[in-house]
Amino acid sequence: MLILSNEDIEKLLPVGACLDVLEEAYRDLGNGMAATVPRYDVFSPTKPNEFYEYKTMSGVLPGRNIAALRLNSSIVKWYEKAGGVRKDKLPVAGGDRFVGLVMLFSTETGEPLAIFPDGYVQKLRVAGASAIAARYLARKDAKVMALLGSGWQASAHLVTMAMVRDLKQVNVFSPTPESRRSFVQEWKGKVAAELEEAGSAEEAIKDADMVICTTNSISALFPGELLQPGMHVSCVKPCELDVTAYKRSDPLIIHWREAKPFQIVVGVDPQSIPDVAEGWQHPITRKDEAIWDFPTITQLVNGQHPGRTRDDAISCFCNNIGLGLQFAAVGSEVLARAREARVGREIPTDWFLESVHP
Amino acid sequence: MLILSNEDIEKLLPVGACLDVLEEAYRDLGNGMAATVPRYDVFSPTKPNEFYEYKTMSGVLPGRNIAALRLNSSIVKWYEKAGGVRKDKLPVAGGDRFVGLVMLFSTETGEPLAIFPDGYVQKLRVAGASAIAARYLARKDAKVMALLGSGWQASAHLVTMAMVRDLKQVNVFSPTPESRRSFVQEWKGKVAAELEEAGSAEEAIKDADMVICTTNSISALFPGELLQPGMHVSCVKPCELDVTAYKRSDPLIIHWREAKPFQIVVGVDPQSIPDVAEGWQHPITRKDEAIWDFPTITQLVNGQHPGRTRDDAISCFCNNIGLGLQFAAVGSEVLARAREARVGREIPTDWFLESVHP
Repeated sequence: MLILSNEDIEKLLPVGACLDVLEEAYRDLGNGMAATVPRYDVFSPTKPNEFYEYKTMSGVLPGRNIAALRLNSSIVKWYEKAGGVRKDKLPVAGGDRFVGLVMLFSTETGEPLAIFPDGYVQKLRVAGASAIAARYLARKDAKVMALLGSGWQASAHLVTMAMVRDLKQVNVFSPTPESRRSFVQEWKGKVAAELEEAGSAEEAIKDADMVICTTNSISALFPGELLQPGMHVSCVKPCELDVTAYKRSDPLIIHWREAKPFQIVVGVDPQSIPDVAEGWQHPITRKDEAIWDFPTITQLVNGQHPGRTRDDAISCFCNNIGLGLQFAAVGSEVLARAREARVGREIPTDWFLESVHP
Repeated sequence: MLILSNEDIEKLLPVGACLDVLEEAYRDLGNGMAATVPRYDVFSPTKPNEFYEYKTMSGVLPGRNIAALRLNSSIVKWYEKAGGVRKDKLPVAGGDRFVGLVMLFSTETGEPLAIFPDGYVQKLRVAGASAIAARYLARKDAKVMALLGSGWQASAHLVTMAMVRDLKQVNVFSPTPESRRSFVQEWKGKVAAELEEAGSAEEAIKDADMVICTTNSISALFPGELLQPGMHVSCVKPCELDVTAYKRSDPLIIHWREAKPFQIVVGVDPQSIPDVAEGWQHPITRKDEAIWDFPTITQLVNGQHPGRTRDDAISCFCNNIGLGLQFAAVGSEVLARAREARVGREIPTDWFLESVHP
């Protein structure tokens, strides 16, 4: 069994490396040839205002002979920032670190194949999904992109979006001027497009063909009225866009038809947990707003939805919830490359097998 | 992080070792102080009549600071035997082995603590649940036990049942005469009770105070009319008892209020999978038979259900579905003893931590 680190994987896989395998996984899922096991979150109080959060999701991708588990075991807290509630993971594992793991299994022998942290692949799968959606939804001649956010997901989206459209200019906005400045400085010259700092979300969006939201904000980044005919907009969390943005979008494509993860709360009133009480309360995630009727990315890649059909449409991709299957897809690529490059630490698979079964 | 084998654990924990921690876990679950994450099974065809089966369940037991994942990654097939359909796991992992793993995490730091096979602990948790239920349901003066089955679970139940009642005689029946004979020979003298071979289920049950079913049969082991006032009956699978047995039982206690695991089938008609089509179709597992209204073992141990109140009642415990939480309970005991005895293989926890988080 192979043990890999984020650093190992980053060397093996450029950010845009998994678009093909992800698209293949969505296609198989849409055709009933792959499976995704829903996400469950358990919250259990540890100290006042601190919680243990245990999170699992899984996927089986027979086309690549891979099953994947993704598991997070974290200490979290919520705090007020900039008028909103933010959630933070506390680095309380040894060496001030975190625990998020992906474990891969063979669908041919059942054997465990690899285990690695989820940090780097998380970027790949989210930015991969957004780019695949943009491939079907953005205008073919889209040249200007508004990039809202300047963190990890912003950089990943910058790379994957540049793979699916011939970008000439990227307007970067994030509320902290130093953050957007250092983002532009870091990425200038690394992509073909010109990078420009924008003083506001409105300024970033004004002449854009694509508006790409990549923040961890739990409130809307701009008023939906700012969207113009012909634009494509996408988000990594439903709450980054307001109701107007969703209502003006047609087509509106979602990632998957689960309104929210299953949540189990131990020992306290569930409503005292912001993720339960508010985190998923955006209209787009509510059952009564008929999220079930929106087409998903699997229909887009399967040709069951035509994607963009008019130049003047506002198209939207809402990355409403992650899928365990994405980890099987990205994981199969990680594994293939690690084996080829002989990277990682091998421990005997033998340690994880048994001669009896229940 | 500690890696343990079935053999390590068998040396550390006698079969009856986990009754206390299991009872504690049920109590916490009933009080909303512990969580269990439902079981999901994914079936994906590999060859004609062979399937990859991926199975997960989890539990969080804050009272012991432990979260546990139990994961099975197996190749399975179904076949006809003795007029019924049986399911078999194929030993196709290296060295003709199987893959079933338990992984433990700390709810204080999130760190992975241990990983070990599920085989031996599976016995402990199932036989543990049956014995805890019998403690509340069987007559205090129960002396004669009918043990139906002669396999792994039969031996585990023999031990745990002898811990909760002062057994004088055990009547062992299983359809293959050699199996029941060798079971009696193997266990004679290892428990205080006399072991007797029975020529039929009826003969085993006749004078019994407890009727304990421990088979992997998917059809009823005896007609429910054979049960007599004052008896306690329990099963490890709902289908071991017929509708009459359930209807005559009062109180009838179930393990947990999930009618069946969630099942996801890839690539074929779900009805072609016996586990989906038939395996859980017993009336007791059907929603329309109101399984939701039966009290659970958590209510029994919490005093929310009085248990047996009359000497002439027929009581029943139906171990209808396993719980991820059981693995957290048993796992916490495994871990404590392994640490104390310094048993197992230590690998650096460091390999499983990350300095970033998604």
